[in-house]
Amino acid sequence: MFGTCLENVRTRSPLVHNITNYVTVNDVANILLASGASPIMSDDIGEVEEITTICSGLNINIGTLNARTIPGMFAAGRKAAELGHPVLLDPVGAGASSLRTNTARELAAQIPFTVIRGNISEIKALSAGAGTTKGVDADVADAVTEENLDAGVAFAKAAAAQFDAIVAITGAIDLVADENTCYVIRNGRPEMGRITGTGCQLSGLLTAYLAANPGNELEAAAAAVSSMGLAGELAFARMAEGDGNSTYRNRIIDAIDHMDAETLNKGAKYEVR
Amino acid sequence: MFGTCLENVRTRSPLVHNITNYVTVNDVANILLASGASPIMSDDIGEVEEITTICSGLNINIGTLNARTIPGMFAAGRKAAELGHPVLLDPVGAGASSLRTNTARELAAQIPFTVIRGNISEIKALSAGAGTTKGVDADVADAVTEENLDAGVAFAKAAAAQFDAIVAITGAIDLVADENTCYVIRNGRPEMGRITGTGCQLSGLLTAYLAANPGNELEAAAAAVSSMGLAGELAFARMAEGDGNSTYRNRIIDAIDHMDAETLNKGAKYEVR
Amino acid sequence: MFGTCLENVRTRSPLVHNITNYVTVNDVANILLASGASPIMSDDIGEVEEITTICSGLNINIGTLNARTIPGMFAAGRKAAELGHPVLLDPVGAGASSLRTNTARELAAQIPFTVIRGNISEIKALSAGAGTTKGVDADVADAVTEENLDAGVAFAKAAAAQFDAIVAITGAIDLVADENTCYVIRNGRPEMGRITGTGCQLSGLLTAYLAANPGNELEAAAAAVSSMGLAGELAFARMAEGDGNSTYRNRIIDAIDHMDAETLNKGAKYEVR
Repeated sequence: MFGTCLENVRTRSPLVHNITNYVTVNDVANILLASGASPIMSDDIGEVEEITTICSGLNINIGTLNARTIPGMFAAGRKAAELGHPVLLDPVGAGASSLRTNTARELAAQIPFTVIRGNISEIKALSAGAGTTKGVDADVADAVTEENLDAGVAFAKAAAAQFDAIVAITGAIDLVADENTCYVIRNGRPEMGRITGTGCQLSGLLTAYLAANPGNELEAAAAAVSSMGLAGELAFARMAEGDGNSTYRNRIIDAIDHMDAETLNKGAKYEVR
Repeated sequence: MFGTCLENVRTRSPLVHNITNYVTVNDVANILLASGASPIMSDDIGEVEEITTICSGLNINIGTLNARTIPGMFAAGRKAAELGHPVLLDPVGAGASSLRTNTARELAAQIPFTVIRGNISEIKALSAGAGTTKGVDADVADAVTEENLDAGVAFAKAAAAQFDAIVAITGAIDLVADENTCYVIRNGRPEMGRITGTGCQLSGLLTAYLAANPGNELEAAAAAVSSMGLAGELAFARMAEGDGNSTYRNRIIDAIDHMDAETLNKGAKYEVR
Repeated sequence: MFGTCLENVRTRSPLVHNITNYVTVNDVANILLASGASPIMSDDIGEVEEITTICSGLNINIGTLNARTIPGMFAAGRKAAELGHPVLLDPVGAGASSLRTNTARELAAQIPFTVIRGNISEIKALSAGAGTTKGVDADVADAVTEENLDAGVAFAKAAAAQFDAIVAITGAIDLVADENTCYVIRNGRPEMGRITGTGCQLSGLLTAYLAANPGNELEAAAAAVSSMGLAGELAFARMAEGDGNSTYRNRIIDAIDHMDAETLNKGAKYEVR
């Protein structure tokens, strides 16, 4: 049950190491705290191995990728893998520049990621260079819809097989797949796309769910994705007249702060294929 | 009409490349999304030319200037100019250190900026070293007031001629000028000065307006400046008892999210000199 | 009186130089503005000495410590000390990595800090390597409680003597001590621990209080600590159903924005030992 995965985050309070971009880092920290986990941000090659050692999960996000922090991503990723910690890759903007695409591919080649989470264009870019990323947002032409859902599910499973990792493709419909099984999740609101960093926040949250649910990674990943979408729904229901995307951002994190197992179990909308 | 400029941002949804400081970057991203534009933040010399190529406008902000990101500012600026994209300079804290003053001047000398936006002290420092910047805020002695407005307008036009760029000087009264024409804009609230980054947010927004309104840059710049001030007014009207500067920050971005052409046309307070 | 210390911040509006982490930097800037002070963030070795010269206080925070910014911390710290400006150290995560512990100790050895502020585990790590920091949060085993308060007070005074600085140890009970006198402060709410950066915000605020109250550093530091805790109480009283940690973050800064001398004098809960 998704609710059990959530409760494990609250009771185990995993410490999550984040090497992430400076755009959305504050929201990532606050949503981790809201979930019951504890965040630490650290990107310097001089300390990332030590930091990841005291943590129980590692979240690597290439949102403001730069030469200074790339070595730390590889070093921390290797160390976390060596220790058996879950490691997540968020290939923000893969497809938008060679630096991002190549770094994300190299990371995927060298680090045994537990989960790779991105929008469909980013995952396509990572997989085969076929994505047409529009900056950091998915291209409309790539979107997973009810019409092309079978193809989307097949792609997600194939990508999972290719990377030997759980692949989480988020958008209007979210897909969370290993090579055999795909959760098709229909939580969320389109207005979430008007907030910067809901994807980055989800990646942080997802890492906490992985860290708190060892041995049950696929369901934990699906639970995290569903909880983020559900938070978007619950937060939207609390919007007052005149509230816009900045208030919505706060309310989504607030909704994660208040979410309990029962709420998640009742609100989760998914099927398994 | 300012409203048409706003609508062009919503319908064209320009992708805006931001090389900006880590203090206010999240708010810059959220206000761009609120306006209907799409932000991407990227500062590494290894990718900025590629990133700016897929965008339609570039926003350069020196708020946390450092050796790592300076080369990227020049490279991206040159590439954007070469492609005919609008490029904006926000010389945050010019006058406060030699590094900032000299880098801003060198950027202004090498990059054909479409708009340079700052407070009066920053623009004076950029222009002649005569400003007396108090950190990142304008010095009271420099302020544009109703009493010295003629001189302020003349200075704005002269600075525009000097830099061959539209100059936007924001403060209690905002001036948006090319060498012949100056919009004098009286939107805004003094309380906006108690939020970090309203200037940075405006620079991002302004770049989106430029990108969405090619060939109509001066009016687009004035529309962006007016819309930010108007958002400050509308947001202030929604403040409840006990709300302070942090809530005000959210409400301003919310107001941009909700603003439409009619609201802007009705609320804009300006004259052209 | 604590209220007088607060009023001095509002009337003197000190410019505070912050070399701080990219996680909580925006909140630090907004809380400084809320208090009536003015923030500037600058970390590059090429400008930190000039920047700190135009400021009246320096806040050094090692939250996302990295090789690029360490030299600037030393250079700015030395310059500020040379000018007689108050300098604060926030050793975020000391004890969590050798880089953090060693850098914090080296800073403490070389710079005559006015105040060192951290949680109990960080101060222990700085003092003797005995802390058991859990990432950036204090370890429960280290916590200052009513039961071990005498020992906590003695430790705070001893640490103050060791570092020849005021030591502020924040947690459920806050201790602000020089070698002879310790303020024991009981403001605050446990929910503040679910927001990233309340400690960082306090360090910024504390630096403003020091800068605005020369010659009265111990009381000023205690007033700042008490005001932050009181803001947490006042903000919590304004929380509505469904509000969570993200809204709480905004309301705390709002409460600082609205706080006046009378409110602080009435709400401060402390004893002097």
